[in-house]
Amino acid sequence: MIVVLKAKASKAQIEAVVREIRKLGYKPHPILGVERTVIAAIGDERAHHSLETLISMSGVDQVMPVQRRYKLVSRETNPKGTHLNILGHIFGGKKFQIIAGPCSVENESQIMETARAVKKAGATFLRGGAFKPRTSPYEFQGLKHEGLKLLEKAKAATGLGIVTEVLSESDVDLVAEYADILQIGARNAQNFALLVAAAKTGKPILLKRGMSMKIEEWLLSAEYILSNGNPNVILCERGIRTFETLMRNTLDLGAVALAKAETHLPVIVDPSQGAGRADLVSAMCKASAAVNADGLIIEVHPNPKEAMSDGAQQVTLHQFSELMGDMKPFLKAAKRL
Amino acid sequence: MIVVLKAKASKAQIEAVVREIRKLGYKPHPILGVERTVIAAIGDERAHHSLETLISMSGVDQVMPVQRRYKLVSRETNPKGTHLNILGHIFGGKKFQIIAGPCSVENESQIMETARAVKKAGATFLRGGAFKPRTSPYEFQGLKHEGLKLLEKAKAATGLGIVTEVLSESDVDLVAEYADILQIGARNAQNFALLVAAAKTGKPILLKRGMSMKIEEWLLSAEYILSNGNPNVILCERGIRTFETLMRNTLDLGAVALAKAETHLPVIVDPSQGAGRADLVSAMCKASAAVNADGLIIEVHPNPKEAMSDGAQQVTLHQFSELMGDMKPFLKAAKRL
Amino acid sequence: MIVVLKAKASKAQIEAVVREIRKLGYKPHPILGVERTVIAAIGDERAHHSLETLISMSGVDQVMPVQRRYKLVSRETNPKGTHLNILGHIFGGKKFQIIAGPCSVENESQIMETARAVKKAGATFLRGGAFKPRTSPYEFQGLKHEGLKLLEKAKAATGLGIVTEVLSESDVDLVAEYADILQIGARNAQNFALLVAAAKTGKPILLKRGMSMKIEEWLLSAEYILSNGNPNVILCERGIRTFETLMRNTLDLGAVALAKAETHLPVIVDPSQGAGRADLVSAMCKASAAVNADGLIIEVHPNPKEAMSDGAQQVTLHQFSELMGDMKPFLKAAKRL
Amino acid sequence: MIVVLKAKASKAQIEAVVREIRKLGYKPHPILGVERTVIAAIGDERAHHSLETLISMSGVDQVMPVQRRYKLVSRETNPKGTHLNILGHIFGGKKFQIIAGPCSVENESQIMETARAVKKAGATFLRGGAFKPRTSPYEFQGLKHEGLKLLEKAKAATGLGIVTEVLSESDVDLVAEYADILQIGARNAQNFALLVAAAKTGKPILLKRGMSMKIEEWLLSAEYILSNGNPNVILCERGIRTFETLMRNTLDLGAVALAKAETHLPVIVDPSQGAGRADLVSAMCKASAAVNADGLIIEVHPNPKEAMSDGAQQVTLHQFSELMGDMKPFLKAAKRL
Repeated sequence: MIVVLKAKASKAQIEAVVREIRKLGYKPHPILGVERTVIAAIGDERAHHSLETLISMSGVDQVMPVQRRYKLVSRETNPKGTHLNILGHIFGGKKFQIIAGPCSVENESQIMETARAVKKAGATFLRGGAFKPRTSPYEFQGLKHEGLKLLEKAKAATGLGIVTEVLSESDVDLVAEYADILQIGARNAQNFALLVAAAKTGKPILLKRGMSMKIEEWLLSAEYILSNGNPNVILCERGIRTFETLMRNTLDLGAVALAKAETHLPVIVDPSQGAGRADLVSAMCKASAAVNADGLIIEVHPNPKEAMSDGAQQVTLHQFSELMGDMKPFLKAAKRL
Repeated sequence: MIVVLKAKASKAQIEAVVREIRKLGYKPHPILGVERTVIAAIGDERAHHSLETLISMSGVDQVMPVQRRYKLVSRETNPKGTHLNILGHIFGGKKFQIIAGPCSVENESQIMETARAVKKAGATFLRGGAFKPRTSPYEFQGLKHEGLKLLEKAKAATGLGIVTEVLSESDVDLVAEYADILQIGARNAQNFALLVAAAKTGKPILLKRGMSMKIEEWLLSAEYILSNGNPNVILCERGIRTFETLMRNTLDLGAVALAKAETHLPVIVDPSQGAGRADLVSAMCKASAAVNADGLIIEVHPNPKEAMSDGAQQVTLHQFSELMGDMKPFLKAAKRL
Repeated sequence: MIVVLKAKASKAQIEAVVREIRKLGYKPHPILGVERTVIAAIGDERAHHSLETLISMSGVDQVMPVQRRYKLVSRETNPKGTHLNILGHIFGGKKFQIIAGPCSVENESQIMETARAVKKAGATFLRGGAFKPRTSPYEFQGLKHEGLKLLEKAKAATGLGIVTEVLSESDVDLVAEYADILQIGARNAQNFALLVAAAKTGKPILLKRGMSMKIEEWLLSAEYILSNGNPNVILCERGIRTFETLMRNTLDLGAVALAKAETHLPVIVDPSQGAGRADLVSAMCKASAAVNADGLIIEVHPNPKEAMSDGAQQVTLHQFSELMGDMKPFLKAAKRL
Repeated sequence: MIVVLKAKASKAQIEAVVREIRKLGYKPHPILGVERTVIAAIGDERAHHSLETLISMSGVDQVMPVQRRYKLVSRETNPKGTHLNILGHIFGGKKFQIIAGPCSVENESQIMETARAVKKAGATFLRGGAFKPRTSPYEFQGLKHEGLKLLEKAKAATGLGIVTEVLSESDVDLVAEYADILQIGARNAQNFALLVAAAKTGKPILLKRGMSMKIEEWLLSAEYILSNGNPNVILCERGIRTFETLMRNTLDLGAVALAKAETHLPVIVDPSQGAGRADLVSAMCKASAAVNADGLIIEVHPNPKEAMSDGAQQVTLHQFSELMGDMKPFLKAAKRL
């Protein structure tokens, strides 16, 4: 920690800060600058009491941490990167993984038709929401257990692994029975009780970035999962909230490149939520390959204009098949084919 | 719903949209403009399938809802405003309510000393976190059940009502045993499973605004509580996340004035989280009275520089007592004394 | 400056950084921490080359400045605060100053009627745009020189001082002939050429905060004016851009309290732009008094529904007169009456 | 325009709105909905007075425009897209254009060395700031006229075209003498006086997106240039300001894809400003090719750690040469080679 004193801090104020730093378990190291004094407080910031509270002392102007707050997820812990094997498919390896399927599971024919089509086009996992987090209580909340059973049928028919969201601690065990990858959505990215409950199933977890989450906070949410004994985390960038209104979210591909450098975890992209517009999905898929993402989770629906949720951002089966072809040259360029 | 066609939409495209609107349960009403056609779709947007999916049709440029998405919380439902009586104190009435106490319950002497001091200075409720949502898993997570028992002691000694946060569906019943008001924090403001579980206790709920939540979304989260049978909701503005770095959050007092006009619910302000700096708390308290808030929830700690969480934003017992005095003329101006 | 090395920085990397710090004119002071080395670089950050470029060296993780970047505007330079006398009215003194008038000057009767009404209700300055910065080239751009002449008439008739915006370096002298206070708008808050040109007129300058300007950047724009020889600056908070869509901007009253503490300059609030909704103006005016602002600039129009710009946020003459009355108790509470 | 009445609007209120719509030059077309009345106002929104002012009428809840506000820049005006020929290089054609060079021109050897290196690596234009917009008045403001002369020398030696920023209306003619492309920076993106002055030189203009500019506003700034008789505009996405602090800006590649679809103008990307970190530049360059950008403007410096501005985001000559190679497969994938 670096404690910056005010320009006019008195000797007594400086000494009080020095005493307090020592009391809180750090070794103070004052440095006299040209305009003001700075005190380096030596000690492990993750082990000790944070010194950020010292800002409340009268002579203190700023307190600045110098360490990363995460440890288990940091690239240094595993410089070669995690290769996460799920049903024989590797996330974080050479191959680019495609998860595709509807926003919500709506009925048997919808999910079966979609599963077959995305499988044929090259997807390895099927997504589909059975429990849906909806902004309004009056919107379709998902088929719940019934939806999970339909996903199971689709898996049986196609061999695709299942990715589905869990919204409630009390559903974690049920959803984990059906899911090959448990999805934690953006709205729950700092629902720590759910993160811990999901971690404890041991299942791989797809952790979406919260809609206004700093990258550090996202990695710390992953750290909650790892520090609760589950190393199987896939990070997923899905767009952040900004002032722009022509797109539902602003896809932050810089964050993908940064998360890849900062952590050893696989990182994938959700281009559907990421822009909220079907017409931008193809471009965002190609760009994801270019920034070294490890895969994509794409919303696909047989008839978006009658979708029960998020129709504006789902591509049709035909569009999906086309975009899978259009991506090939970019995957090849990224050495992911 | 208003469906705006593209400037060059063909007759066939327009007719397809008209058919689809009818199919989804609305009555289409096309209007020929000078540059483009607009179709008003008549029907109750809350009862029918949303037409926003029509954006995926080739001739459609925009789909615009015209109704509010919330109903039970809207001011029209209860034009005089809710007066919520908790332990004889009315939220939403003439009197301005003060909730005060430490960010976290840390130990018996800390909470007892604080409770006595805030009571003496005029607070009617005691806040204190027993379960703490912390960005990092390595930070102090609260005393949990032990913390609740300490709050109970403080209540017994002072008569103050208890406001404390619940983080997990599985703790809802336990926390509800001790709390007079259940707090849902900013990170859980769209944790719908927790909202529903908390609603079902019947206890009054303090619902904080999420850190990048639009006002409409905040009201819809409240709508989740009301539509699950619990009308006892207090909204709490606690600052939103912006690009500014000198303050932890940007307190949005316009949102308070707007929420008061749009809903019949009491609205209070958290000036401590709201700015994240103790030196701004007093000004933000006075401004809250000026925008017609119904009360405040203020973080107070006997020794902020050694606080186990959020020391930078907690005021001392002495500062609290002073600010209670400083607020009086503003409460009088607001006719809240 | 504090230069934080990477956790695994080699001895050679550290030495290279030390050499570079010395080369750039600072005295390096390395401190060995438990996890990583930190180097305090002693020297005046405003006089020397910034060390932020060192981030490009291989062993460096972060570079953190410890000084404020502004000097002339900082509170330390003038602890008692600037009292700016304009036509006998003091900005920054005890009295709260009211600037009021239409968004745009539209015609003689509009500006004369408004001027008389705001004068009668207690305003001391008349605002009115003659040169209008409009997002679209097809929107009303103001009456220009003609508008300035109408403002002059209104001043002659009422004695109100004139506040009007200047958009172009080549208009600075013309506008300065008519204006008692030159307004620099949010879009030009980092138009440094205009800031310098306006500064050189010697006229008092009302400097609006840019719509996504950090407080530090706002103060540095003021520093441009002071460092070009003009100490007569009034800061004006006018709302920042956020994700919220129910309000045009988010009025940041915390920034007002902070700017008052950090600088010696008068700070006023524009509640009209600040929320972009006439129905919120009254609450925002009262709150401005509560956070210790020195005044307000309010948009007032005889007939907002036919205004040529920003009708949604202008209050009527009657509403203005009412809000002036409604503010009185809050001004009294703030000891500004 | 669509005017949405309040749910409880009276017949008299509705009639008043109808009258006002007619008075303002539109043809009102009221539609009775299940919950509320909506009035379609038929007329050209770009020709008439905007109806947004009607929000100030008592029965009105919302006013929603249905047309685009821009015309000359819209894709419909030129469906095949603009091919802008500058010194024989086409922006908006098949070939991907590379502009490269230092943030600031610092001295002769720096600019000559950089120019030769970027030319050799494949750049077609040289960038370099002679007039620098700096947040603080104490930071290096550029070599000004001297810098322009050095750029001229570099052009003479290498044949590279010159891209350089103009900050002031009074420098427009001087800068236009030396520049092949005039750059308008993010801070001046709504400095309409400068846009018009630059437009009038007839020179091609590189228009950066403002740091919190909505896409619509960016296109309207371009519309200012086209409507002042200069069709030679290149749009440049350079990152927007968000809450994230690990990157200086958030590069918005969705905006690039969207701008390409909405307008006929060439769109390029500034990955240096876009992330503000040299280590992310290469990934962002590849991603720009993937979203169909027409080129890049990249900051390159022989010795970033001693750069006089923005050292953190400039790549070295060697890194630049490498990234030009690394991009090739992606340009090939995008069919831009």
